[in-house]
Amino acid sequence: MRLRHITIVAALLYVLAVPAVPWAQTDPLPSWNAGTARQSIVTFIQTVTDRASPQFVPPEQRIATFDNDGTLWAEQPIYFQLAFALDRVRALAPKHPEWKTKQPFKAVLDGDMKAVAASGQKGMVELLLATHTGMTTDEFTKTVADWIATAQHPRFKRPYTEVVYQPMVELLEHLRASGFKTYIVSGGTVEFMRPWTERVYGIPPEQVIGTSFVTTYKLGNDGKPLLFRQPQIDFVDDGPGKPVNIQKFIGRRPLLAFGNSDGDQQMLQWTAAAEGARFKGIVRHTDDVREWAYDRQSHVGRLDKALDEAKGRGWTVVDMKADWKKIFAFE
Amino acid sequence: MRLRHITIVAALLYVLAVPAVPWAQTDPLPSWNAGTARQSIVTFIQTVTDRASPQFVPPEQRIATFDNDGTLWAEQPIYFQLAFALDRVRALAPKHPEWKTKQPFKAVLDGDMKAVAASGQKGMVELLLATHTGMTTDEFTKTVADWIATAQHPRFKRPYTEVVYQPMVELLEHLRASGFKTYIVSGGTVEFMRPWTERVYGIPPEQVIGTSFVTTYKLGNDGKPLLFRQPQIDFVDDGPGKPVNIQKFIGRRPLLAFGNSDGDQQMLQWTAAAEGARFKGIVRHTDDVREWAYDRQSHVGRLDKALDEAKGRGWTVVDMKADWKKIFAFE
Repeated sequence: MRLRHITIVAALLYVLAVPAVPWAQTDPLPSWNAGTARQSIVTFIQTVTDRASPQFVPPEQRIATFDNDGTLWAEQPIYFQLAFALDRVRALAPKHPEWKTKQPFKAVLDGDMKAVAASGQKGMVELLLATHTGMTTDEFTKTVADWIATAQHPRFKRPYTEVVYQPMVELLEHLRASGFKTYIVSGGTVEFMRPWTERVYGIPPEQVIGTSFVTTYKLGNDGKPLLFRQPQIDFVDDGPGKPVNIQKFIGRRPLLAFGNSDGDQQMLQWTAAAEGARFKGIVRHTDDVREWAYDRQSHVGRLDKALDEAKGRGWTVVDMKADWKKIFAFE
Repeated sequence: MRLRHITIVAALLYVLAVPAVPWAQTDPLPSWNAGTARQSIVTFIQTVTDRASPQFVPPEQRIATFDNDGTLWAEQPIYFQLAFALDRVRALAPKHPEWKTKQPFKAVLDGDMKAVAASGQKGMVELLLATHTGMTTDEFTKTVADWIATAQHPRFKRPYTEVVYQPMVELLEHLRASGFKTYIVSGGTVEFMRPWTERVYGIPPEQVIGTSFVTTYKLGNDGKPLLFRQPQIDFVDDGPGKPVNIQKFIGRRPLLAFGNSDGDQQMLQWTAAAEGARFKGIVRHTDDVREWAYDRQSHVGRLDKALDEAKGRGWTVVDMKADWKKIFAFE
């Protein structure tokens, strides 16, 4: 009898011990250092998913929205979408002899990045329209898929889809495992992201919101329907455009929102002002060795007003250098 | 040995028989009569969800889009959203003394539906803007939720949310149980639908696409952010606008689409022209006893060109009178 009891107790202990091993092995955020940022994220997710908590939120209301450039992947030395546009100008140049003398195209073909930058926002829009419109949606999707499979980041010499922040990929996965629906809400254009976000972030096309172009439906010469991308911006998904698009596309307020720049300030305000517990996070670029360090003075991803508001209101500011054990998976 | 074999066979038969009982008890489409429409739906869902089928489609690509008015709920004697607008004109009239003499508002207040109809599309847009805009999104959502909870359909003397087609609710559930993501793609305005679609159809706000108004973000006097509904139509989600919005909001082609009128023709064409097996369905209003009978000559939900195309191309046309055992759950 005695032996038998011991055996049963041992068996029970064994059973109890088994789940502890995978738990220890499956820390959902292994690339995050211990610290206030990690702790605030973990505590928030526990609080809103615990049925016993007064802050419990039913799964269908667990909406999480993430900016993309500078929040999920890098945005230096230039926005990756701009790198795509420049490559497209070079690829399309034989069909556009007029670009040899016309700015900002001439500057791109001459490799004169200072002149490209000097063309300002007007020049950027011209580059965008010339390379992102004037074709069907299927054709554009194929062009993006081909480019993203082959182009390399100039500093890291790897595909752009590897220059994504491993801690944020882990956070996206942890949120989904906790019943959240994860969305991208980006100033980048939506159909530049959709061909690869599911594979890279686990975010399907229907959960990607971004700047868009006017698209029109018509029957082609063969009677088959086409969606044609017109050279006209439909909506700029940046700044106040982000909460507007969150309402338009999702129709619920985010429970958690993450950005990295002043272009995300209104999305974070809109999230913060909703009832109940809400998580507002900012990724701050502080690591000039492993990534880049920039904020208030930067032309790309400027973080100034939103940083003041984050500090004033106690939003979570992630310090990349201090809070991230690993920035990229390839490190 | 002989007995043992018989026992094993009997046991096997028993095991095989057990699943047959719940299957018989849980016919997913009990309100559909046996017939070609039902059969084409069942066969299609089996084909695309069977891993052994050459037409198998992975779950993440199983997008189903449904029109709302006349496809999921009735649209007679007038669109339910118009009934809401008329009720709102009456409720708001004390604040608008000028409506007593101004058309189409005067006609609404006089109960002169002929004059309301005579005001045409211009009049309808005026009614829509006066009752659906000029407030925050939160305020409008509350107004809709209050109305839908109390208003009654004039013929059936029941809430409008009960004047929904039970066979289509069953189909939505069966699709979701088969791994589909179900969407509404309606000519009605999106924020008139979102407050109740989850409860009535099991379709969450983020899967409701519709006509929308321009919305702007601002900080209120108390510093709290607001989304304000401007008196300007953003996008008409009807006809060619449906495939455009499917691309904009979902970014994948539907695997299955259902409509009931010429306003759904382009959505069905866009679905039909995609590669692989696709289901194209039309609900035809043929039952002037239990519901209404109308098609080519109707001002509401006209079904003319789309019916010709459906017949020419072999799309599934559901004959409400013949194919539906029950139309409404309350029957």
